[in-house]
Amino acid sequence: MTERQCGTRNICVCLEFLTAAHKAQIQQTAERLGFVVHFFDLTQKEEAKSCLQNCEVFYGHTEELVRSASAELKWFCCSFAGVEPYCKDPAIFANPDCLLSNTNCYGVTIAEHVMMLLLMLLRNMPSYEWMIQNRIWFNHLPSHMACSNEITTFYGSEITLLGTGDIGDHVAQRLRAIGASHIIGINRSGKADNNLYDEVFPISRLDEVLPKTKILIMSLPSTPETYNIMNRKRLKLLPPDAYLINVGRGNAIVQQELIEVMNDGHLTGVALDVVTPEPLPKDDPLWSVDRLLLTPHVAGNMAKGYTCDLNVSMFCEDLKNYATGCPLKQLVERQKGY
Amino acid sequence: MTERQCGTRNICVCLEFLTAAHKAQIQQTAERLGFVVHFFDLTQKEEAKSCLQNCEVFYGHTEELVRSASAELKWFCCSFAGVEPYCKDPAIFANPDCLLSNTNCYGVTIAEHVMMLLLMLLRNMPSYEWMIQNRIWFNHLPSHMACSNEITTFYGSEITLLGTGDIGDHVAQRLRAIGASHIIGINRSGKADNNLYDEVFPISRLDEVLPKTKILIMSLPSTPETYNIMNRKRLKLLPPDAYLINVGRGNAIVQQELIEVMNDGHLTGVALDVVTPEPLPKDDPLWSVDRLLLTPHVAGNMAKGYTCDLNVSMFCEDLKNYATGCPLKQLVERQKGY
Repeated sequence: MTERQCGTRNICVCLEFLTAAHKAQIQQTAERLGFVVHFFDLTQKEEAKSCLQNCEVFYGHTEELVRSASAELKWFCCSFAGVEPYCKDPAIFANPDCLLSNTNCYGVTIAEHVMMLLLMLLRNMPSYEWMIQNRIWFNHLPSHMACSNEITTFYGSEITLLGTGDIGDHVAQRLRAIGASHIIGINRSGKADNNLYDEVFPISRLDEVLPKTKILIMSLPSTPETYNIMNRKRLKLLPPDAYLINVGRGNAIVQQELIEVMNDGHLTGVALDVVTPEPLPKDDPLWSVDRLLLTPHVAGNMAKGYTCDLNVSMFCEDLKNYATGCPLKQLVERQKGY
Repeated sequence: MTERQCGTRNICVCLEFLTAAHKAQIQQTAERLGFVVHFFDLTQKEEAKSCLQNCEVFYGHTEELVRSASAELKWFCCSFAGVEPYCKDPAIFANPDCLLSNTNCYGVTIAEHVMMLLLMLLRNMPSYEWMIQNRIWFNHLPSHMACSNEITTFYGSEITLLGTGDIGDHVAQRLRAIGASHIIGINRSGKADNNLYDEVFPISRLDEVLPKTKILIMSLPSTPETYNIMNRKRLKLLPPDAYLINVGRGNAIVQQELIEVMNDGHLTGVALDVVTPEPLPKDDPLWSVDRLLLTPHVAGNMAKGYTCDLNVSMFCEDLKNYATGCPLKQLVERQKGY
């Protein structure tokens, strides 16, 4: 490790996923701009805390480390997309003017998770998995099993995306590329600044769109407007044979009401990567709902290669902006939370 | 049902999946061309057999029905892609010159099955399913579990397709559209008549391609050349962290040798939709191989809507060809078997 010296501009990097190539990339970018970089992994938190006593920039995560930094910290680049913990309590930063940025590199991996979940629902994969676990080999489902043989395809499908941010855009792009015929976006403004959607509606017209929605994909952030947005009434506005996927935040769905409508036979398949609360308690009724596919909030887990590379590149790009006095591309307004 | 009359040109249709719209489409096409259509479902096999005593065209499947047809049968349009049962024994047709065609409409549904299986392998889905079944909610896998957290993405992936027929082409098209960066095709000729592949190699150069293959997708038909093509030696030529998917025929892999190399820790993930024999016996060691995902030969199951619509359209198109004396587009050479 480079010895920290008085007068040097220090960067503390404390991350779990860096390869030698990533470190070299950060090192070279930093050196060219006159910084000295100090690398730590998550087993070296105490060393990182000590380094954060005289660092100008921190690239990493965890509240504990941010709270430990001195007032010298001028910019914290969070390696996650979600920065709620760093916006809730302004006192987390010793320097009240510390800049905060996030790393929105999760669109690809979340979109691939959505495609996997959707294909598993459309193709009845949970039924086949049940058969395989029980060493039963039919190539047509026994007729007493739900939706026997009525599998559905992406090809020609109509999709509604509730939330058209980075995740919604990546999902729309992929579903279009493999054959979706009509994609509706729903967001705050009712407008999109790209041509990924056939139609875009404001969230105020959600109740109009739900009855014609066969596949609803939710990727909403957690805000007062999105809290409990899918309640019993709206869930029942979806056709009985609709599919629903949520990879945004668990509190966008009134979970008890979802359980009740599904237990009444409404909706063909639902996949949730996010629930309330997390972790889900052992005795929660959600674990045992039929036609429900759960994953433990893993849609955004980093993919080897791509996501990590992009995370590092986004930091390096903003390091250049920071060093040259340009606005940070990934800047988060700490008061607003996004 | 229309009364069959002497001198009329009869078509027998015996299928399980036709909607009223499909029947109307067949009816209208047939009437315009001077045929009378008789529809049966699979519960009416005896009625269908009696109808096949004086029918010129049969659209459907099952050996039993084909064997029951009289020498008046001039064209059998099989609603499946696989026509081995109708090529093995020439005596199956009372009319030795009966034309045989198949219905190659399964590319989309099989390609979507491949994408689902591949995403499930790349994203460690079986591990998350194990956690959910045991009501364990971590969003990072415990470190003692294989490949903890090292999920992979389609984005930038390199894929080798062993078999570049209808299925391989549909898979290549979709994987490219969602971000695969390099796609190698392997087939008999070493050439492709489309631009879906970055490189195409003849099957004789397979051993050269395997060591640089991270994801191998097999969709080979069953022929003497493909029988046991992936044996221990070739499986070991794949990198230890490679993924393998087979949706062609089970006998393209020496199954016992696959089990052995996987039990030795070779290959990160394997998904098989086809095995030897089918159905897989209850005590087969294949059921319990770690890192292996099985589905019971369902990749080609018809998707509601798209696959059925295409099946009917392909028949109607060839009915026009047949009636006007043009070559059948989906003709199979009974001697060659394809």
